[in-house]
Amino acid sequence: MTSTPNAKPDFSDIFATRMSGIPRSFIREILKAAEEPGMISFAGGLPNKDLFPIEELRAACDKVLREQGREALQYSASEGHTGLRGLIADHYKKRGIQNVEPENILITNGSQQGLDLLAKITINQGDKVLMEAPSYLGAIQAMAIYQPAFVTVRLNDDGLDIDHLKEVMAQKPKMMYLIPNFQNPSGISYSDDNRRKVADVVRGTNTLLIEDDPYGELRFEGTAKTSFMNLIPEQTVLLGTFSKTLTPGLRLGWIVVPPALMNQLLIAKQATDLHTSTFTQRVAYEYLIKADTDAHIKKIVERYGRQKTAMMEAVKKYFPASIKTTNPEGGMFLWITLPNNIPSKKLFDMGIAEKVAIVPGDPFCLNQTEPSSSARLSFSTVDETMIDLGMQRLGALAHKLCG
Amino acid sequence: MTSTPNAKPDFSDIFATRMSGIPRSFIREILKAAEEPGMISFAGGLPNKDLFPIEELRAACDKVLREQGREALQYSASEGHTGLRGLIADHYKKRGIQNVEPENILITNGSQQGLDLLAKITINQGDKVLMEAPSYLGAIQAMAIYQPAFVTVRLNDDGLDIDHLKEVMAQKPKMMYLIPNFQNPSGISYSDDNRRKVADVVRGTNTLLIEDDPYGELRFEGTAKTSFMNLIPEQTVLLGTFSKTLTPGLRLGWIVVPPALMNQLLIAKQATDLHTSTFTQRVAYEYLIKADTDAHIKKIVERYGRQKTAMMEAVKKYFPASIKTTNPEGGMFLWITLPNNIPSKKLFDMGIAEKVAIVPGDPFCLNQTEPSSSARLSFSTVDETMIDLGMQRLGALAHKLCG
Repeated sequence: MTSTPNAKPDFSDIFATRMSGIPRSFIREILKAAEEPGMISFAGGLPNKDLFPIEELRAACDKVLREQGREALQYSASEGHTGLRGLIADHYKKRGIQNVEPENILITNGSQQGLDLLAKITINQGDKVLMEAPSYLGAIQAMAIYQPAFVTVRLNDDGLDIDHLKEVMAQKPKMMYLIPNFQNPSGISYSDDNRRKVADVVRGTNTLLIEDDPYGELRFEGTAKTSFMNLIPEQTVLLGTFSKTLTPGLRLGWIVVPPALMNQLLIAKQATDLHTSTFTQRVAYEYLIKADTDAHIKKIVERYGRQKTAMMEAVKKYFPASIKTTNPEGGMFLWITLPNNIPSKKLFDMGIAEKVAIVPGDPFCLNQTEPSSSARLSFSTVDETMIDLGMQRLGALAHKLCG
Repeated sequence: MTSTPNAKPDFSDIFATRMSGIPRSFIREILKAAEEPGMISFAGGLPNKDLFPIEELRAACDKVLREQGREALQYSASEGHTGLRGLIADHYKKRGIQNVEPENILITNGSQQGLDLLAKITINQGDKVLMEAPSYLGAIQAMAIYQPAFVTVRLNDDGLDIDHLKEVMAQKPKMMYLIPNFQNPSGISYSDDNRRKVADVVRGTNTLLIEDDPYGELRFEGTAKTSFMNLIPEQTVLLGTFSKTLTPGLRLGWIVVPPALMNQLLIAKQATDLHTSTFTQRVAYEYLIKADTDAHIKKIVERYGRQKTAMMEAVKKYFPASIKTTNPEGGMFLWITLPNNIPSKKLFDMGIAEKVAIVPGDPFCLNQTEPSSSARLSFSTVDETMIDLGMQRLGALAHKLCG
């Protein structure tokens, strides 16, 4: 063995091959640009911080530390806080979502960690994972680490393209990842009919269906749809989060899994970070048992609904008629598509120069060879006046691009 | 494709092969036994909750939510809170540990997550990882997920066995994982001379040295030792945590890496859970800029020191002379070894029956064919009277076992 005192170590081979498969985090650079002073940003995926229940959380912190400080600051169970898991199960029942028992819930650091843990316990290199086209970038990144082969199914305005789904299911994917309510990035929702058809295709296969539902309660139009947990409970994994209805800064989400998966999920959680913060879990619990969460969510919904309307009206007013948009009934995102396959990256670049930020569709698109002509616009954090101003600028640019 | 409406899905092949390599979490069962009413538990690895600075943290929560609630509850950067990273770097300097810059620090959910992220970005299946024998179970679990080939080096009372280290380093491990201060589970510390010798062996190789230092500030005897960050900074990764000096319930730790690793670490952090709780980071920051942390740590050290002395005296008083112990100068753990290769599992079983819990050495020992004759006893959470009582019971059992 040679030990050369002044030689520099060579770390060119230090990285695991799994790191080479992760898409370049283009969106980080976009979000950096979006934070520049004077920028009107439709780029972020953030909830509106005007609506955080700060005073109620302050009271909850105070109570937790006064009454249970020693326990609230100690290590705790990997599963998560028993009371909080109970409240989550109860809340699903209230929303008409059956088959969720507290013992099948694991508390995670946001639902991003739910994705990491689920991928960790299931994906072998090359395993097929079915994704919506387009899909949530964070899910793509979380799973890409474990080197699956992604297969994609087209999204229509009412959900998955069923013929395409049948075709792709023939490849027997181990998992499928869906966001049926106010999808990120497209804003579309699956109709009840589409959900039943998807369930009929998936039922009886060995494919695990992940239903990610961060925005489901943020509905400002239309009627609530069913959950795959009602349709094919034995194959459904639910991912949930407090990030959009309470606050993201506590980093609290959860995962509901079929009983057969719980033990391995717990082992993975323990190996990954032992458990989620005892303190933030107890604070959320104290908040939830006191708060009028319906009234709070109503406030969010009213705000986002108004802002969505402002954005849709601005599209009509300022954009060329050849631009297509989805029509989100809730959530935070609108998806626009330029005509004639014009790359949306062009609109993004021109927008940045005029101080309006959007996210071009490319990072959301897997297995794609052409540049995306779609873009994601968030209406959650910008007020109606600024939406009008930003969309006016973007509209003028779109007119230039579309000729 | 067949869709059989009432067929149950078959999840027997759902798990990734990586999950088969994780040691059975025997210790979870032990800790469950240790929580039974009336049990005197030396089994846990918990800090003493009597010493949590609850009132100071309550003031910090209050200030954060009053003054920066909107930002403290929003999403934030994957790297972590800038101010907190600065304080951590400053604190290392104060302790005589050089070469730690804030931009090389990533905030994690406890140092357990630092281990997961580091293993995630580096370990390919079969890569050699050098571990102390015995080593920390949590580190074994975190890394085992990524399927390395573990190689082990004997620990002596003053650190790694240098001849054995040289021999094992010939296998060119990608990483080595060391706990040089008050090691878990053995309680031993590396002498300065041993550290220099280890550094001489490692310097100039392409092996990354992970120095895990959760207990370094909890020294009740002897003098502080140097860090590998002073000796071979370009190859050293430091893992740190607030769990032992502040509280574990906030789930706050950090990892200091060579600049070449930072970008991939950030990508992995983002894919894993986006970022650590904005709120708990800001609370810790507000606490730290106000608190007299030296005085607080002094209180912890005095308590643990007294309890360690009580435990050592009880060994002398109640145990057979043939029992060997380490002599920890800090931290939370004492390691005892039975003579004649008597399995410590026997002492554990007898202890549980008499309402005293310890942890047999087996889960800490990799690549081992014989049952361990050692056991870990924690002196952090039990007061001196109960230590005396528990050790009296254990001593009587040890006399029976050793004949």
